[in-house]
Amino acid sequence: MNPNYVRIFDTTLRDGEQSPGASLTSAEKLEIARILARLGVDVIEAGFPAASPDDLEGVQRIAKEVGNPLPGDMELTRQVPVICGLARANKADIDTAWQAVRHAAHPRIHTFLATSPIHMRYKLRMDPEDVVKRVREMVAYARSLCEDVEFSPEDAGRSDPKFLYYVLGEAIKAGASTLNIPDTVGYTTPEEFGGMVSGILAHTPGIKDIVLSVHTHDDLGLATANALAGIRAGARQVEVTVNGIGERAGNTSLEEVVMALHTRRAIFGLETGIDTTQIARASRMVSNYTGIPVQPNKAIVGSNAFAHEAGIHQDGMLKNENTYEIMKPETVGVNRSRLVLGKHSGRHALKVHLEEMGYELSTAEIDLAFERYKQLADKKKVITDADLEALVEDQVYQSQEIFSLDGLQVACGTMGMPTATVRLRGPDGKQMVHAAVGTGPVHAAYQAVDALVGVKTALLEFNVHAVTEGIDALGEVTVRLQADNGSAFQRTSPQNGKVHTRTYGGYGADTDIIVASVKAYLSALNKYLHSVGFHRSPEAQAEIEMKVA
Amino acid sequence: MNPNYVRIFDTTLRDGEQSPGASLTSAEKLEIARILARLGVDVIEAGFPAASPDDLEGVQRIAKEVGNPLPGDMELTRQVPVICGLARANKADIDTAWQAVRHAAHPRIHTFLATSPIHMRYKLRMDPEDVVKRVREMVAYARSLCEDVEFSPEDAGRSDPKFLYYVLGEAIKAGASTLNIPDTVGYTTPEEFGGMVSGILAHTPGIKDIVLSVHTHDDLGLATANALAGIRAGARQVEVTVNGIGERAGNTSLEEVVMALHTRRAIFGLETGIDTTQIARASRMVSNYTGIPVQPNKAIVGSNAFAHEAGIHQDGMLKNENTYEIMKPETVGVNRSRLVLGKHSGRHALKVHLEEMGYELSTAEIDLAFERYKQLADKKKVITDADLEALVEDQVYQSQEIFSLDGLQVACGTMGMPTATVRLRGPDGKQMVHAAVGTGPVHAAYQAVDALVGVKTALLEFNVHAVTEGIDALGEVTVRLQADNGSAFQRTSPQNGKVHTRTYGGYGADTDIIVASVKAYLSALNKYLHSVGFHRSPEAQAEIEMKVA
Repeated sequence: MNPNYVRIFDTTLRDGEQSPGASLTSAEKLEIARILARLGVDVIEAGFPAASPDDLEGVQRIAKEVGNPLPGDMELTRQVPVICGLARANKADIDTAWQAVRHAAHPRIHTFLATSPIHMRYKLRMDPEDVVKRVREMVAYARSLCEDVEFSPEDAGRSDPKFLYYVLGEAIKAGASTLNIPDTVGYTTPEEFGGMVSGILAHTPGIKDIVLSVHTHDDLGLATANALAGIRAGARQVEVTVNGIGERAGNTSLEEVVMALHTRRAIFGLETGIDTTQIARASRMVSNYTGIPVQPNKAIVGSNAFAHEAGIHQDGMLKNENTYEIMKPETVGVNRSRLVLGKHSGRHALKVHLEEMGYELSTAEIDLAFERYKQLADKKKVITDADLEALVEDQVYQSQEIFSLDGLQVACGTMGMPTATVRLRGPDGKQMVHAAVGTGPVHAAYQAVDALVGVKTALLEFNVHAVTEGIDALGEVTVRLQADNGSAFQRTSPQNGKVHTRTYGGYGADTDIIVASVKAYLSALNKYLHSVGFHRSPEAQAEIEMKVA
Repeated sequence: MNPNYVRIFDTTLRDGEQSPGASLTSAEKLEIARILARLGVDVIEAGFPAASPDDLEGVQRIAKEVGNPLPGDMELTRQVPVICGLARANKADIDTAWQAVRHAAHPRIHTFLATSPIHMRYKLRMDPEDVVKRVREMVAYARSLCEDVEFSPEDAGRSDPKFLYYVLGEAIKAGASTLNIPDTVGYTTPEEFGGMVSGILAHTPGIKDIVLSVHTHDDLGLATANALAGIRAGARQVEVTVNGIGERAGNTSLEEVVMALHTRRAIFGLETGIDTTQIARASRMVSNYTGIPVQPNKAIVGSNAFAHEAGIHQDGMLKNENTYEIMKPETVGVNRSRLVLGKHSGRHALKVHLEEMGYELSTAEIDLAFERYKQLADKKKVITDADLEALVEDQVYQSQEIFSLDGLQVACGTMGMPTATVRLRGPDGKQMVHAAVGTGPVHAAYQAVDALVGVKTALLEFNVHAVTEGIDALGEVTVRLQADNGSAFQRTSPQNGKVHTRTYGGYGADTDIIVASVKAYLSALNKYLHSVGFHRSPEAQAEIEMKVA
């Protein structure tokens, strides 16, 4: 392997998905895994399979569908990524992880154990020698199932360096081929973190043939700098998430590390396998599916990152815009000319365009998308890529519908009695109607939905933004909720064994933001109902599929 | 001065306000300057006075009202910040800057000139010796007006180091007491930037008694790391913005640098004068006034930065939460217990509470706030600090009203004919009504407003979010627009002399998001109208003030 190649290990679907409210369905995870493969990431950490049966299934689907060459793709026009599953250092977790990733062409098991005195004593209640023994046994066990094993010493930053070198050396002997150094709480400075990586490379027995990896967090705003310091010190894998999502202030963001290496390649002399032109699209998809917005001043993927102010040049001398621009927007897939299709574009033009955008839709899905496209074109003069993405992504959610919106009528304003009448089609395919009053039109509509669906929920977040400029724009709504009887669906955290109550994100798009709000709410409710075992009756499902086909 | 003291130079109102859509009115700038003073920043760069008469006036008001001890505050319970104005290296700019800042107790003029070969040749069309001459003359001129002069060599990173040391030495001789080193395009790595600062400190004649400053940008996600590298190399002033706003990916964020120095003081051994408990409130105010949202995974000030997942501890051994928490939320002013006032709280309780929150309101303003508080308490069970902030900040905007919302009636839903009837009170105090249909309720209402106000605008951004959890929450709407005849109001960029068409941000809060949307739109429209010279008639204004008083 090229010694100057830095592997991009994406953990959007594992560490990123652990951020509050980022919970994704299996279908959404699969879509994100597909775009990660298109981005060209080397490793996709697809989840923590032992967290819940739903997580296991999600990783399994990705291993099967994204972790293998596409049918007929004999020339391997794209790299097939390694599919990785996280496991605590115990046999049950490792077995579950293996069940999930074994279907991939290149599976990996990633296991970890804390090595700092405080964690060993108070969390693990293990002697250092027991920790070493467990690492040895569990890495060897993982290696007996899977050729590619990664080991992380949790809380490495607070571990005794000599002990760390010893544990890592034992993990290598037991068969680990990648060692990952996490800054679990985002506490280090670049000098400290780079120094730690240098020390490990200099003192760990057998490290020569191993890929050293870094995993940093952004609590002090230093994640990117720390990851780059680790890479300069010799790490050749970096663990990242799209948009830097993750618990608390998040993980190192893929786009920043990749673009720093790319833009400053003269200094770093390193390369990655990333197709940078897919970055903007991946960013948008992850933001929409997780419901976690990207701030305008976010590096690389923020809406202002490449914003050029409108205005005339007073100073005719300043010919070269590069004076103030270190990256071209096109490099990261930000396209300045966004008008794509007119009102009279046909079904075939739409199909070709969606394919170019990277969507793999069935004929029935294309038909439905075209139907919705025409409706939108009637309302809105200019249809852009962003509109099409919103439209297709809104549609992807509809495939899991249990309750669907059949009609909505709203009256609101300053009179003080906002009222909404909602008509839903239930799991049995039958229509049901309810009217409710609320503090505003969204509250009124959500009250009506609650009455029809019969679930009590707590709304944790509600956001709307316009997809494109102009007041006739499509509005995108993202919501996040939790069922009031939160015990219904829980998952286990890999780090601390805590059980978290799951939250559900929903997404909806419409030119009417109240309609979009109800769609988003139903999409989150349907995710919740799906996760607790609700399904449409087969008859109702058949009827809906008939309508689509 | 303590050699371990790092001065915080806040440029939220200058470089931050240059970000697209962040345009602030004078009243908003004043409020932000007040909270910056409460934060304890050492220097407030209040604007670029030569940009427009409006900018000059804004800086002047801040110099007068924030740059002096509060009346009666003989014990100086708060530090009075230096008020700084930016000026290009010419007499007209410097004169204007001085006109703006001279009213402050501690005024500063900040002037700059590019020193890189590419900028000198193509932008300035000046020989290096002419650049040195200009720096010498203009720093001396500024020094003849003002004791405190700061000089920045623009594009320092691409300047010849020897030339840079020479120019900086001449600036010192001419009277500069602070030298600021900008990474104008966010291109450097921490090693490069720290090395540059070390070189300047080692080789610039006369640097010993000078405060060296750093100014970094986040284009590659390295702004905080670069600023800290500069500080470790010996810089003792850092230029920052709240939330890291600024052009493109923004400036170094105040909260990250301050909290890194604070949290890792054992490593840095440095201190600042910042009252960290004011950080969360300053962040929120800047976000609301500029309309630039903060992403949940933003370090320090994101909504998830301190989020602890709900859930039970399976692992009873893990007693110490500090294992995963390097900062206490209380340290930055994030208060976990947010319920503050009940439905039956009186006017006095509200007044006291708002004062504790840092709002300085007149009796009439308190009365109006109490009125609105009671209305909200009728609709919403739980009133939190966040609700109160939204309510007061929504109210602050109303003081600049030219057109005000007098009534709104909306019908929308899936029937396809969203209709809004808007009643406004115009600049003459008279009511006017218009009904319009649109692609959604917001579009319909904005069409009706446009018809009544008679201005054509382009809506650039539209965002809604719920202030607090729960579906009965107050919705906050931020919009950004540009007048279609964009030539009407323009300002000059200090860096490249370009003239930008100004954009206007608006903010509105209501439990009904359509009402909040119309308020936000009117608030932006009123800013625009105000900036082009519209005013309410004196009679209408008197009538409105009567209602308030």
